[in-house]
Amino acid sequence: MKIMAINAGSSTLKWKLFEMPAKTTIASGMIDRLGSPKAVFKLKYNGQKIEREEAIESNDVAVLSILDALKDMGIIERFEDIVAFGHRVVAGGEEFKKSEIVNSANLKKIEQLAEYAPLHNKIEAYYINVFKKLVPKAIQVAVFDTSFFVDIPETNYLYSIDMEDYKKYHVRRYGAHGTSHRYIAQRLEDIVDGGIKDKNIIVLHLGSGASISAIKNGKAFDISMGFTPLAGIMMSSRSGDIDFSVLPFLMEKLGITDIQEMIDILNHKSGLLGISGVSPDMRDIEAVEDTNSRAKLALEMYRNRILKFIGSYTAEMGGLDVLAFTAGVGENSAPVREDILSGLEYMGLKIDHEKNEQRGGEIKITTDDSKVAAYTIPTNEELMIAQDTYDFAQYLN
Amino acid sequence: MKIMAINAGSSTLKWKLFEMPAKTTIASGMIDRLGSPKAVFKLKYNGQKIEREEAIESNDVAVLSILDALKDMGIIERFEDIVAFGHRVVAGGEEFKKSEIVNSANLKKIEQLAEYAPLHNKIEAYYINVFKKLVPKAIQVAVFDTSFFVDIPETNYLYSIDMEDYKKYHVRRYGAHGTSHRYIAQRLEDIVDGGIKDKNIIVLHLGSGASISAIKNGKAFDISMGFTPLAGIMMSSRSGDIDFSVLPFLMEKLGITDIQEMIDILNHKSGLLGISGVSPDMRDIEAVEDTNSRAKLALEMYRNRILKFIGSYTAEMGGLDVLAFTAGVGENSAPVREDILSGLEYMGLKIDHEKNEQRGGEIKITTDDSKVAAYTIPTNEELMIAQDTYDFAQYLN
Repeated sequence: MKIMAINAGSSTLKWKLFEMPAKTTIASGMIDRLGSPKAVFKLKYNGQKIEREEAIESNDVAVLSILDALKDMGIIERFEDIVAFGHRVVAGGEEFKKSEIVNSANLKKIEQLAEYAPLHNKIEAYYINVFKKLVPKAIQVAVFDTSFFVDIPETNYLYSIDMEDYKKYHVRRYGAHGTSHRYIAQRLEDIVDGGIKDKNIIVLHLGSGASISAIKNGKAFDISMGFTPLAGIMMSSRSGDIDFSVLPFLMEKLGITDIQEMIDILNHKSGLLGISGVSPDMRDIEAVEDTNSRAKLALEMYRNRILKFIGSYTAEMGGLDVLAFTAGVGENSAPVREDILSGLEYMGLKIDHEKNEQRGGEIKITTDDSKVAAYTIPTNEELMIAQDTYDFAQYLN
Repeated sequence: MKIMAINAGSSTLKWKLFEMPAKTTIASGMIDRLGSPKAVFKLKYNGQKIEREEAIESNDVAVLSILDALKDMGIIERFEDIVAFGHRVVAGGEEFKKSEIVNSANLKKIEQLAEYAPLHNKIEAYYINVFKKLVPKAIQVAVFDTSFFVDIPETNYLYSIDMEDYKKYHVRRYGAHGTSHRYIAQRLEDIVDGGIKDKNIIVLHLGSGASISAIKNGKAFDISMGFTPLAGIMMSSRSGDIDFSVLPFLMEKLGITDIQEMIDILNHKSGLLGISGVSPDMRDIEAVEDTNSRAKLALEMYRNRILKFIGSYTAEMGGLDVLAFTAGVGENSAPVREDILSGLEYMGLKIDHEKNEQRGGEIKITTDDSKVAAYTIPTNEELMIAQDTYDFAQYLN
């Protein structure tokens, strides 16, 4: 059964075609600079890599170009060979506690939730419609970035603001990266001795966007991203948590009158980029760490913010059993992992330095007598989306 | 040698007269509703309590009324018997790393720093001038709320925003309540076996404003209040840390166009008050905890935020040796202390339940075999101010 996972952005469209339930990737690809006459079409299949520049000026054309390419290459015979499409949706609000088949009522809800993710939900809803039109027989499944965190304890999702603002306007901690955190939790259930049901776990999703989750007794317990993905730890170009009183002060100093403009600066010119002045990319910063004091400072601050979240989640869970690193930086930067883990020796955590240097796959990077076990686990949000989609599709004729 | 400690607000003026270096309180008092025809004048001396309503319509009259009262009651013969006045100043910026004698250059700096504390520095500077005029022979000493935290590590005081915003506009974590945290550190140096030089300490100043500090090797290491005192844990009516993206969202919903108005709401209608809907006062909330679910939730959230800070500071210091509770709630609410300490048993902390119920004085509230020692220590910011002032005054003829 062929299932496609879709991750749509404002100018990108990523996809991965799976054979399910075998979980094997058949083909994958993405369109970049979508909307321009020089869009980039990439596709990987069977060891081949296609990359071509072409005019892809609308979302409809983008979808058609992917499906046509799959047909032209003989990967599918007809569009209908793909029986289900799973879509990443950023904001699921409080309504969507799990992935759902998209009917017209759900589609409307997804569109309405755009106020919580203006840049995402609208375009995602639009793509769902396009796939529906082009492959009417297939089902569309929405997989929400937030649903893993909808049921964290009230103490953890509420902000200490006027309760009416929660009741009326649903201002609360929603979190993000839920599909990744859920995938890692699922992998840990297999990997960790005795499973995760009675464990206190912290998952570090360290990519260009970065988030840290607490998972207690197999269920999400807290998440560093908040009402929006701007909250939490320092990220590539996002500030993460800062005193909100900084905003009006800086707006006055910088002559900014629109608060969204200030938030854009905190989103795009802050974090590792803002401190290092070098780059938002961890690799660039690590490359100059020894000679550039601001790059070194950025790394120290990054470590500090992560340690603080680990400590805070450990305290609210009442202890820590397992720590997992994932996403770009988490999977690939041994020095970042080493830095963080070395700060946790007070907990009885013991790094296996050799294992920590290894690359690829799921690796335990602490010693057997370590009181806290740490792992590197590659994330796979697309597979998680395909699995959720398969859960519905398996009942189709 | 008579020294007076002054704590001035916009409509209050608190004072305490000390005999130094004996540290004994001679008299104390406050003026409330200052600026109104029905101001309240309170004074305590030698077991007597005076409380009268009178018109005190200016800051100058307020100061004169205090000094005159002291003379009338024979506590001093002449104003000059008070050789030094120590003033609490809220914002010390990066300039004031310790308490300072106020000369005209320093006074100008204090006034300039008003942009970091609009409601405080101006009035404080004004009062310093009034005391100077009325008692020209006395010295005036400024004791800053921020100076204890000026030299915390760069990783901890910097926000992960554009570095230029720090360099040009000095946007950083300043903290507050420094005089209290410093006083507690000084007391712990006496109380804790072997002193605090090689200890990791967390001080919980839990009043209506509340802050948590980390103190490592005898020096301030971190502070939960930030660029302003709005940051950090949930407080009586202040939200503490929230995702700053909440501000524009709520402003639109609430029809607020001025960000300061939004910040006022986060300052005055949030925190324990916002969640409980009952009161900003911990005593009122505790009184209805069993019957009011929102009061109970407010207490649970309060505990949660404090535990998270304790965890995060423990992680960034690499362990925890000593915890100290102070200020209104910290000194007086055994249930709040019990709630927090019970969440730290995973660290090997063991509560001495009986000691925790005791009231008054400096009390160790953990058992002797507890891995982390916790104390209740009454704060005394006025004495700290008097001590700093005496450090300068002792060299006067």
